[in-house]
Amino acid sequence: MLTAHTIKVLQSLDKKKFRQKYNLFLVEGNKIICELFNSKVKIKEIFSTDPQKLDRPDLHVTHISENELKKISMLQHPKDSVAVCYIEPQEDWKDREIQLVLDGIQDPGNLGTIIRLADWFGIEQIICSEDTVDVYNPKVIMATMGSFTRVNVVYTDLTEYLSGTENINIGTDMEGENIYSFKKPEKLNLILGNEGNGMRPETEKLIHKNVMVPRFGKSQSTESLNVSMAAGIILGQLFSERK
Amino acid sequence: MLTAHTIKVLQSLDKKKFRQKYNLFLVEGNKIICELFNSKVKIKEIFSTDPQKLDRPDLHVTHISENELKKISMLQHPKDSVAVCYIEPQEDWKDREIQLVLDGIQDPGNLGTIIRLADWFGIEQIICSEDTVDVYNPKVIMATMGSFTRVNVVYTDLTEYLSGTENINIGTDMEGENIYSFKKPEKLNLILGNEGNGMRPETEKLIHKNVMVPRFGKSQSTESLNVSMAAGIILGQLFSERK
Repeated sequence: MLTAHTIKVLQSLDKKKFRQKYNLFLVEGNKIICELFNSKVKIKEIFSTDPQKLDRPDLHVTHISENELKKISMLQHPKDSVAVCYIEPQEDWKDREIQLVLDGIQDPGNLGTIIRLADWFGIEQIICSEDTVDVYNPKVIMATMGSFTRVNVVYTDLTEYLSGTENINIGTDMEGENIYSFKKPEKLNLILGNEGNGMRPETEKLIHKNVMVPRFGKSQSTESLNVSMAAGIILGQLFSERK
Repeated sequence: MLTAHTIKVLQSLDKKKFRQKYNLFLVEGNKIICELFNSKVKIKEIFSTDPQKLDRPDLHVTHISENELKKISMLQHPKDSVAVCYIEPQEDWKDREIQLVLDGIQDPGNLGTIIRLADWFGIEQIICSEDTVDVYNPKVIMATMGSFTRVNVVYTDLTEYLSGTENINIGTDMEGENIYSFKKPEKLNLILGNEGNGMRPETEKLIHKNVMVPRFGKSQSTESLNVSMAAGIILGQLFSERK
């Protein structure tokens, strides 16, 4: 049984303000929840319509009805279980050899896709401007398909960070160097800007090099590739040297 | 003024059944509607909260209120205008040198992203199994950002088509050839399967070669890249020879 109070608290976790207040976030669906078991994410409790499926006697799993699940799920079509997890304070971090840097990414689906992409290429850390969408947003968590457990996502003052890093800061710009002939530096930050406005002028000033994915189509449209797709194609190319 | 009948007809265009009944589909937002002017898409009429912005005296533009727009828009946050366009019967088509072939793609956002990607790389034709999501679905149209005007999307019996084509049929499979060493054939079909189930067994039988994007991350998760992202990375690599 879920108390009215618990339902209210869990529902409030849709908003960053309340995630920060309670230091909690939600993970939905057994498939992603099972990935938590092999990660450092700490689970407070799990609510499930079918606790036996999870088969974790060491965890506090509460049996709930389909109706209760609907009340606490953030999804249009709720899955089987909802895990309530602790948000850990951001740890001290240091530069890795290849990182993504996000300057004001707003769409939760984009951030989730970018985290999943980072995980695929073994990129262990993503550095975000403070106004980038929150990694604990339920839509971001869903879109990562569990990858958020393997990629360290940190939030910081980008201008300060980019001024001090020893990595080469690489931006994307149609006037930049063709990604197919670009020589990958040993240590790099690939910087991705906001969906509509691109990078902030302050960020642009701290770019060392720009790269671009050539357009082969005849379209004269100004619409470029979606930010996560552009990142995917660029990473695909940067990693081609490791084949 | 919009009549109740018109509102009902336009709202019904959310469903494939009614799009086929009326031979009509909707395009929303001036940005994409302006792309129609340079395409072969035939516009029946436009409803706009600000007709002057469109500045096309040759077109039948009806001035509507914000409230009326809300009624006919398929979007959560309606834009400025809605164009009602004619669905043309599928023309005779023949193979192009590089094509995408979709076997049961269900998510409108994925199809839209794939069309946009094709447009970027100058791929002029996408061949879909008959159960692939409808290109005229409003969510597909939105996700293409106008690219649907430049890419020919055809629906056909895939087994029959793949058996008869002279293009090399290339599938994706983690057991396939590494995309970084794969030698691109002159004429090819890149086949992308359903989001959850991949390609149908009947389709798999007609594959000539498989390619894969190597995973550099340590994750043991079975979750692969999203189908459109995988397509983007593969195309990025196939086109590297044209740099």
